[in-house]
Amino acid sequence: MAEYIESLQRLAEEFGRLEGVGKKTAMRMAFSVLELEQEDAEAFASAILEARRRIHLCPVCQNLTDRDICPICADPDRDHGLICVVTDARAVMAMEKVREFRGVYHVLHGLISPINGVTPEQLKIRELLARVESGEVQEIIVATNPTVEGEATAMYLSRLLRPLGVRVTRLAYGVPVGADLEYADEVTLFRALEGRRDV
Amino acid sequence: MAEYIESLQRLAEEFGRLEGVGKKTAMRMAFSVLELEQEDAEAFASAILEARRRIHLCPVCQNLTDRDICPICADPDRDHGLICVVTDARAVMAMEKVREFRGVYHVLHGLISPINGVTPEQLKIRELLARVESGEVQEIIVATNPTVEGEATAMYLSRLLRPLGVRVTRLAYGVPVGADLEYADEVTLFRALEGRRDV
Repeated sequence: MAEYIESLQRLAEEFGRLEGVGKKTAMRMAFSVLELEQEDAEAFASAILEARRRIHLCPVCQNLTDRDICPICADPDRDHGLICVVTDARAVMAMEKVREFRGVYHVLHGLISPINGVTPEQLKIRELLARVESGEVQEIIVATNPTVEGEATAMYLSRLLRPLGVRVTRLAYGVPVGADLEYADEVTLFRALEGRRDV
Repeated sequence: MAEYIESLQRLAEEFGRLEGVGKKTAMRMAFSVLELEQEDAEAFASAILEARRRIHLCPVCQNLTDRDICPICADPDRDHGLICVVTDARAVMAMEKVREFRGVYHVLHGLISPINGVTPEQLKIRELLARVESGEVQEIIVATNPTVEGEATAMYLSRLLRPLGVRVTRLAYGVPVGADLEYADEVTLFRALEGRRDV
């Protein structure tokens, strides 16, 4: 056991806090840190603090960024009348890989889920409404995951936004049902984007 | 892509340096760090530096420790005449889980492997010889993995140590051939320990 090497044990516990990292993986990573050069270990530690310190939400799209306004929202070449609504920052990353979407994003930071006690008020829906009410938006593509919560959130947004005169579409079922956007391949995502339909 | 969030990208790269962490896992972990509380992120960063700063090799058994001499070598209740020779610190951890071994350890920090250019001089064999020559040692259990390199290293140690009048044994083949000690279950390791035989 590692109990007799306290600082190793403590480091493994820190790794264990991360999403999807089990006990054995955490210990393996802790050992791995010991094999880093001193300067690499320092770079690692400072990257953690730096990322925490610098990254915040873009005031426009609510995506993660380390600038005042994220580069996508700040890009004049993108279509600011077309907003792709996603669950989290990872989905933005997945969509950007397609390299075909020229609109902008809106990150909800979750999905409506009565079972888990997540209500619309806890998501960045108010901020989305404000963007739509500013008048510039023509279409909103709801690209939440094709799961129960994703569909429910899409329905909710559609009912909320359609009366405001904006077209609300949904990604086509090119994405495998039940899967996570993050793991969809680029071609599938591209097909899903092309075949989007009105909710 | 995360290229537009530089500090996130940098953090993911740092995770990617760790053994067995691929690109997707690294990015997932970087996101995970952003979800930590500020104080947890600070604790994580300091645990990395602390582990690197405090952990060194025990001057006796060459295992990792954050004390002057590791708690196993410093324990008067353990049998210092019985040394279990292992490849790395993880194997010590696996052996300690059995809770049946009352001897001490010696960590080689590798295996002889001409293909990978690892010669006996690069391992902690000199330090093992010095311990045997001090006269206190009666038996050495060579608990290297049952792989080609593990067997070759065991043979090498046996030829080196037997002339010094010490009994050299090898773990019984309770451990599945080709596997890694770290993943053996406790019962298998216990059987292997009981059925050890002369090389």
